[in-house]
Amino acid sequence: MKLYGYWRSSAAYRVRIALALKGVDYQSIPVHLVKNGGEQHQAAYQALNPAELVPTLVDEELTLNQSLAILEYLDARYPEPALLPADAAQAAQVRALALDIACDIHPLNNLRVLQYLTGPLGLSEQQKTEWIHHWLAMGFQALEQRLAETAGKFCIGDKVSLADLCLVPQVYNALRFQLDMSPYPVMMAIYQHCNQLDAFQQAAPEAQPDAQ
Amino acid sequence: MKLYGYWRSSAAYRVRIALALKGVDYQSIPVHLVKNGGEQHQAAYQALNPAELVPTLVDEELTLNQSLAILEYLDARYPEPALLPADAAQAAQVRALALDIACDIHPLNNLRVLQYLTGPLGLSEQQKTEWIHHWLAMGFQALEQRLAETAGKFCIGDKVSLADLCLVPQVYNALRFQLDMSPYPVMMAIYQHCNQLDAFQQAAPEAQPDAQ
Repeated sequence: MKLYGYWRSSAAYRVRIALALKGVDYQSIPVHLVKNGGEQHQAAYQALNPAELVPTLVDEELTLNQSLAILEYLDARYPEPALLPADAAQAAQVRALALDIACDIHPLNNLRVLQYLTGPLGLSEQQKTEWIHHWLAMGFQALEQRLAETAGKFCIGDKVSLADLCLVPQVYNALRFQLDMSPYPVMMAIYQHCNQLDAFQQAAPEAQPDAQ
Repeated sequence: MKLYGYWRSSAAYRVRIALALKGVDYQSIPVHLVKNGGEQHQAAYQALNPAELVPTLVDEELTLNQSLAILEYLDARYPEPALLPADAAQAAQVRALALDIACDIHPLNNLRVLQYLTGPLGLSEQQKTEWIHHWLAMGFQALEQRLAETAGKFCIGDKVSLADLCLVPQVYNALRFQLDMSPYPVMMAIYQHCNQLDAFQQAAPEAQPDAQ
């Protein structure tokens, strides 16, 4: 199994946590998102992933993009530990939390969007930071309200799920952009619990061979 | 079952198609996203969905947000017709196409983002349209390339899947914003095939009671 990723990509980080939790051996292939105008735009990678985004997982004949699709696939192929509850309603709640992050927060602040803000739109660094904080805070307020009802040590009770695999990279990203996390104590407690686990430590950006 | 939605919301439209395909009776509760500053921001709706977004599905004790989580739930609860293949690798491909739309295209052009562009950022209507077309075209180019390899009548072969339920609302949205669709013949052919089916017609924005 090969994972094309980038140490600081939130989406690749989610997949690395799953692979570590499930104890799956894989080859990590770094795709540098900034160097040389972005290696994800090179023809060889574009053939693998037409959207020119990371991550991409290659498992024999299967070439798969989209981190959440990869997580579902890994969960089906390596069922232990399960990332989703067996009950359909509970699984839906987990998926909804994961999508709150993957659809409503992360896409607005990823690299290509920030590049469009300061490039074609000519925004200042200050305006870019306000944009980042605006969408992070809006998403986190909703998430904190939901998690206050569902969380134990982790997003849903005391068992790691797909939602935690999305939460940790998103909080890591928010800390990197110096968002004030004091309004989100539930999220921060989950973040800290997760980061006590070996799998989350192995998957952390700074633990990757391509970290700078 | 109650669905809180809005006739022109792409995310609510996805869920309406699934309910129609599976023949599930439900009560449609319109949440007007523009009138009175947006009914989604009112306290009663915020209590139901802290992110103040549509759709929200209420099924007895379960209150569920995020259209893709709702679709997975409906597919588990009403298995026929299936929206996902039984095979894990094939299901992953379907989910990846759905997420290409739900994560990489739709979030950048939804109402709250467009309001931020013309509000706090002070962009012109022309710049707003360029933003919309930029992200639609970028996403559609990648999608067209993928679909050229997988499509039959529908996104994956000749069977409707989760991917089609995301594709049709996104193409509808692009047509509304007058994107030139001529570079995307595969997507347009799928869009037209889908719209020949009763379920897609019943779910169309103009067929909703709150359509204007």
